[in-house]
Formats: sequence, C-alpha cells, structure tokens
Amino acid sequence: MAEVEVAPVSYEDLALIEEEFAEVDDEIQRKQHELSKPLYAKRAEAVSKIPNFWPLVMEQAPMEIEDYITPLDSAIFAEHLTNLTVTRPELEEGKSGNPKTFSIKFEFSENEYFEDKVLEKTFWHRRAADDWVGLVSEPVKIHWKKGKDSTDGLTNAALALFEARKKVGDFKSHAVPEYKALEKKVEANGGNTSFFTWFGWVSNRRYVTAEESEKANKEYAQRKAARKGGEKPDAPLVEKQEEEDDEEDDSMVEVHAAGEEIAVTISDEMWPNAIKLFVQAQEAEDISDIDMEEFDDEEIDAAEDEPVDIRSLVQSTEKRSRDSSGAPPPKKAKK
Amino acid sequence: MAEVEVAPVSYEDLALIEEEFAEVDDEIQRKQHELSKPLYAKRAEAVSKIPNFWPLVMEQAPMEIEDYITPLDSAIFAEHLTNLTVTRPELEEGKSGNPKTFSIKFEFSENEYFEDKVLEKTFWHRRAADDWVGLVSEPVKIHWKKGKDSTDGLTNAALALFEARKKVGDFKSHAVPEYKALEKKVEANGGNTSFFTWFGWVSNRRYVTAEESEKANKEYAQRKAARKGGEKPDAPLVEKQEEEDDEEDDSMVEVHAAGEEIAVTISDEMWPNAIKLFVQAQEAEDISDIDMEEFDDEEIDAAEDEPVDIRSLVQSTEKRSRDSSGAPPPKKAKK
Repeated sequence: MAEVEVAPVSYEDLALIEEEFAEVDDEIQRKQHELSKPLYAKRAEAVSKIPNFWPLVMEQAPMEIEDYITPLDSAIFAEHLTNLTVTRPELEEGKSGNPKTFSIKFEFSENEYFEDKVLEKTFWHRRAADDWVGLVSEPVKIHWKKGKDSTDGLTNAALALFEARKKVGDFKSHAVPEYKALEKKVEANGGNTSFFTWFGWVSNRRYVTAEESEKANKEYAQRKAARKGGEKPDAPLVEKQEEEDDEEDDSMVEVHAAGEEIAVTISDEMWPNAIKLFVQAQEAEDISDIDMEEFDDEEIDAAEDEPVDIRSLVQSTEKRSRDSSGAPPPKKAKK
Repeated sequence: MAEVEVAPVSYEDLALIEEEFAEVDDEIQRKQHELSKPLYAKRAEAVSKIPNFWPLVMEQAPMEIEDYITPLDSAIFAEHLTNLTVTRPELEEGKSGNPKTFSIKFEFSENEYFEDKVLEKTFWHRRAADDWVGLVSEPVKIHWKKGKDSTDGLTNAALALFEARKKVGDFKSHAVPEYKALEKKVEANGGNTSFFTWFGWVSNRRYVTAEESEKANKEYAQRKAARKGGEKPDAPLVEKQEEEDDEEDDSMVEVHAAGEEIAVTISDEMWPNAIKLFVQAQEAEDISDIDMEEFDDEEIDAAEDEPVDIRSLVQSTEKRSRDSSGAPPPKKAKK
C-alpha cells in the first residue's frame, strides 16, 4: 500500500470527527433504551393478551429472515412461539455498557421438537486484538427430541467445537478434533439450513472473548486519547489489519451464513416495529379472506391512498374471529 | 367497512402504545440534534478545507437520488457545488419543535446556469385537517440565466401556482389559471426532469399551511388525551379519511415524482454519512486509477475482508494529488 505521510490537519480531523459521531450514536442508543424500556414492558403486557401475536409478526418477517425459514420452522413458530424479547444486557448492568450488544429470547410452548421452553442468544459487540470490531455469539444448546433435530446435528457440533476450544483455552484452535468434524458437517450441509441453525452461529470472522475485547478496547481508547491530545503516533488510529491468516478465519466452521444479518434484523426492525408487523399480518389475512370480486376497480383505486387505521383493522379482525358468519369484510386499507 | 365495535382493552392499548413510541422517537431525534450539532459544525469547518468534498459526496448519492441526476446536473454539482447543509429549523427556535421538519441548503459558486449562490428548501412536517400527516414544501425560486433553465419552466410554473393560490387564500384551488398551465406543463414533461425540478416540489398529496397544521395538531392532541384518560369517543384515534376528492389531490400539478424520497435520503443518509461517502468516492477514484493488472487474484481476494482505513485512504489520495507521478497506487481496501 501507499506509504503514510504526515497528512494535513483536516484529514486527521475527519477520522476523529467520525469517532465523535460514533460516540454520540452510542449515547443516543443508551438514551433510547432508557426511554423505550417502560414502553416495551407495556407492549409485552398488552400483546400477551393477543393470541398468536408473535407468530403473526414472524409471518411478516423481512426478506432477510424469511429466506432462512423453512416450512417446518414456520410450522414450529406458528404453533409454539409464545413470546419474543430483545434486551440490551450491557445496558442493564450499568448505563455505560455497550449499547450494541443485545440478546434475543424466543419462548416456546410444549412441543414435539425440543425440550426447551426458552432459547436465548446473546450477540456481543466486541473488538479483537487486531482491531476487528463486530458481533460474536456463543452457540446455544437446543435439547432436540429424538429424531427431531432440524439442523441435522449442526448446532450440536458448533457447541461441541466451542466447548472444546474453551477447554484448551484457545478460541482460534483448528487442532481440536471437533474442528474437522464441524468442517465436514458444514461442507456436507450445503447451506440448506433450518432457522434453528442460527442458534449455533458464532461470528462473521471468529469468536472474540470478553477479555480479548476489553484489552483491545483499552488500547484503542489510549490511541484515541493520544490523537485527541494532538499527538501523532506512528500507527494510524485504526490499524491496518495484516493479511488474513487462517487463524483469524472460522468461515469453514460457521454453521449459518447470515447469522448476524438475521440477529440485527430482529433487534433493529422486527422488535421495534412488532405492532406494525402484526397489523400488516392482520391486513394480509383480511385480504386473503376477501372475495376480490366484491370490489370494482374504482373502489380499489380509491383505497390505495388511505392510511392504515390500526384500530379498525384490529377491531374488525377481532370481530370476525368472534363471529365469522355473515359480517361484511372490512375494506382494504393501504398506506 | 366493518362496523366498529367496542374493542378489548389490549387493542386500544396497541394504538396508544404506538403513539407513545412515536413520542419517544421525537424526543430521541431532538436529543440527537442537540448532541450532534457541535459535531456537524466541526465537520463543516474541516470539510471546507477539502476541495470538492460535497461534489464527491454527491457522486456517491444513493440510487434513490442518482436516478434523478442528469449528466448536466452532475456537471453543475461537480463544478459549482461548494457546500451542503441540513438543519432542523423547528428545533433551532425551541427545543419542543417538530424534529421531522428540516431544511436542505445547497451553496454554489458563480456559474453560467443561475444567479443564485444559495438554494435552500424547507420540508415541513405537517398535519392536514383530515389527519393526513407528511412533508410539504414551498417551491423555491431559481433565477435561471437566459436560456439555461434545465427544468423547462417547471420550477417557475410551480412557484406561479403557489403564489396565485396564496393570493386567493386557497391552497387547494384548481380554479386559478396557473393550475391548468402547470398541469399542461407537467403532462408535457413526461417525467424527464432535471434534479433542479426538485426545488419546485410541494407534496405527495397537497400543500398544508402552518395554520391548518397547528389546528389539526391541537385537535389530534385533544383526542389523544381523551383516549389516554380512558374515554372512548365515537371517533377512532386516527380518523378514517373520506374518499379522496379532487380537492385533496394535487398530483396532476406536482413537478417531481420523488421529491420527498430525495429530501429524506439527503437528510437521513447523505448528511450523516457524508464523510463515509467522501471516502467511498476517493476509493472509487483510486480504483479507477489503478491498472488492475498490478494485482493478481490472490491479493484482491485477501483485500476483500479488510476494513476501510479512512486515514490511509484520504492520505494516499492527498499524496497523489500533490504528486501524481510515480507513487505506487494504494491497495484496494473494502469493508
């Protein structure tokens, strides 16, 4: 790469300004968490009275998630998903924690597939020794019932590798036998995975422990402070990573290609917009129930520009579910 | 539509909870504005020292905007755009103003196309009497030089209609002669518009005055308060709009189909991410400058996973612009 020269102040400024914007973003996320928390509690209480609230929300999952839900997954969610909750564990313990770390908790009713009533996965936002920054997660144990493992042993094998590495104290190890075993399984699987494989996801790169992250963050903060103080150390603020070596790359044993994308879509889109998605699901059901011939074209055109009226939508559906006899269908309303 | 029944509490709750989330969103936006303001000032100062900062950012405009930039527009931006600023005028006056109202200010150097050094357009977030909510904007006068109007008179005609309606005190009027004149122009134009036509955009529906909005907001707040107090008035919280009548629809005289989309993309994407877009533009330039044969495939593959190093990128480009002779090209870095 091109040699590094002493840059004009304004360029150095740009990197520092971006840093400061990132700090403001974190502060805003903390504030949002604080202000929204009681509302999410209120929402949880309200939606607990609505049968199938979360299964209906899951039906409206954005494409990024829908693509990874098989018909069997879909049936499990439809019949057994009783609750979904997103939390920010590092904000619960202390206000100054990392707002980018989050947990997603699925709750299920008794079912024929697995023993677990709760499957919770935490996505830690961490910094590696070489300044890679991103989400990492531990594989979650799913207690499959006999013959019911829809991930074909992938989640178990992911967990086995994680435990083996923990035991030898090296999360980069390719030497433990569980590495080769998982590599083979991943290769054989060919990406045709159940949604539940997502619970085995670890990282887009490799796992980073809390200790490694803490040390790296401390060093990064020191470099940043030096920069702000006007010092210009030899090393750039963000160090150029060395050529990727195999040790830093766990892609051969990653059980889910889109683990991070799915997690972020749930936490940042589905969770805050759950009520809107629920209303959409109601609407979709209403429309599929309607004999479209009842409308002439003019009526449909006129309806296009009308805003969604949450209340009449949910009410009319509620009404239908109590009395599905002869009431006229609600009018299609679309934003 | 289906008749409205007394709904179970939880459904009524959903609409109220969504309202409360919307209030939190507004508060968060105000907080973000407050915390980011000094950073945007700092950024403005820093980037003012970088020639072509904003033209380079415009080059990286998201697709939603790029689609509406003609080659001529592109040349005007490249040669004459000196600054771009997004402000929130209703937050400047008082903290409790509407954070969804914003202004976009383009600054230009002396040029052969128009006299204006500044073109600023404000997007007011307003509520209509029938509870439609959205952005509206007044057409901005552009002082085109003789024969240089790239909008073929559309912006002038949009302004003429706006002024005529203001004069008769009826912003819905279809009776003023300027309505028919603009309708003809829009029809003849066929959507083949210059970016500058955007300065004539009014609304996705029709203009709403500050007075109409204030009154509608007051009434809405009263209904909301009544609901929170447990009252269940006959009217739903969000009133179902009547069938659209022609009076509420100005689409036949709207000069730009994507005015709101462009405005929101500038304020919510380009403005906060300007430094990232600038770095992208540098990178794109670097790559197009590079003789790709210098890399073998392996090197390119290895580079794919490396993070962008803002500092080395801007530095290396800076270096090249001072000495474009024989320095080796910087390595392609991609997030």
